[in-house]
Amino acid sequence: MSRDWSATVLTLFPEMFPGPLGISLPGKALEKNLWSLEVRDIREHGLGKHRTVDDSPAGGGPGMVMRADVAAAAIDAVPRDGRPLIYLSPRGAPLTQARVRQLSGGQGVVLLCGRFEGLDERVIGARGIEEVSIGDFVLAGGEIAAMALIEAAVRLIPGVLGTHASTQEESFSSGLLEYPQFTRPQDFEGRAIPEVLNNGNHKEISRWRLAEAERLTRARRPDLWTAYEKPRKP
Amino acid sequence: MSRDWSATVLTLFPEMFPGPLGISLPGKALEKNLWSLEVRDIREHGLGKHRTVDDSPAGGGPGMVMRADVAAAAIDAVPRDGRPLIYLSPRGAPLTQARVRQLSGGQGVVLLCGRFEGLDERVIGARGIEEVSIGDFVLAGGEIAAMALIEAAVRLIPGVLGTHASTQEESFSSGLLEYPQFTRPQDFEGRAIPEVLNNGNHKEISRWRLAEAERLTRARRPDLWTAYEKPRKP
Repeated sequence: MSRDWSATVLTLFPEMFPGPLGISLPGKALEKNLWSLEVRDIREHGLGKHRTVDDSPAGGGPGMVMRADVAAAAIDAVPRDGRPLIYLSPRGAPLTQARVRQLSGGQGVVLLCGRFEGLDERVIGARGIEEVSIGDFVLAGGEIAAMALIEAAVRLIPGVLGTHASTQEESFSSGLLEYPQFTRPQDFEGRAIPEVLNNGNHKEISRWRLAEAERLTRARRPDLWTAYEKPRKP
Repeated sequence: MSRDWSATVLTLFPEMFPGPLGISLPGKALEKNLWSLEVRDIREHGLGKHRTVDDSPAGGGPGMVMRADVAAAAIDAVPRDGRPLIYLSPRGAPLTQARVRQLSGGQGVVLLCGRFEGLDERVIGARGIEEVSIGDFVLAGGEIAAMALIEAAVRLIPGVLGTHASTQEESFSSGLLEYPQFTRPQDFEGRAIPEVLNNGNHKEISRWRLAEAERLTRARRPDLWTAYEKPRKP
């Protein structure tokens, strides 16, 4: 399958990229041209000789806000090629594995990384920007969140992982957390591998793993458990 | 305030660090010794001449699982110094800003980054490992998640951000998403800054911002809204 999946990242810190995305799984896939990465410096669209990109918040308050006109200029310079435009922000919709699959199956992504206190709200509406959050915590900027989104999407591109099967039983793909894993040695500090995993009965192993995945999800993530149970009830 | 906050990262890809953590806010704070980063290669505890760290999953299945004995040896070689030991995993408790604040206020963190299909479950129990997830999606490894956790914690260390005030009104600190921000120019493509932000009445501005934060949270994150409303009801 030949396909182009490309990520364009708009950032004030282009030197952060590729960073971890140039190493290991996403790095090898980058070398094999299974995806491409373009990094653009928002400051190139800054104003005046200091290439200013931010200003004080209207109404007062600490910090600085990224200007709408500067962000718009940076956005408008990028060919979208059917890719969604995403601003990484704790105010956004929480990223899910389902959304990662969608993004991975598309043409790629254009990611805007914020810094400071945020981005002028008007450019979000004016450019139809989708706000996505990687979690309920606050980062210093969107760059590491962009890396997380890209790594999650890239590993699902066909050919990136060794075998397709390994994304089928992992956390979230069936709405459950993944079952516990074990490997050699048989005895670790007096702890044995569960007997069922040694008996070679694949049906029993599958049942045990499903039961464990259900037990873990119910105990740790009642929110996921509720969503998992719902469609099974009449 | 003099305090040592130190992160130790156990990884199979030490070359990923400091990466983005060496740049911008966390990078400047690292230079100023407001925190310290130690990166250790799990492979140093690998077995045999190939320094093997993984093996096939007991019971079958795709991929490889990190061995309990290798992970334990890597963990046991790190002085904990009162720091929590965290394994980044999609099966973990979702990271929240409240937990980030706790971690930031402590001595630091010891972070174990997984790769492959996961970590032998027995070492999690045997070493009392806390499992933490940065979100409901699957990464190729724990490294970018570790970077996110560290950046979120480091920015709350006193002295790292310019002013303390800027972490008081941001998303999650009051249980709400942050209100919209605006800055110059007054007119952006025919869109004006909301009038209330220009009138200099700080009480009205505060009320408007709270109302906007509540509106956004109710619309985008019913889960946060429910938790925010609860303690206010009799």
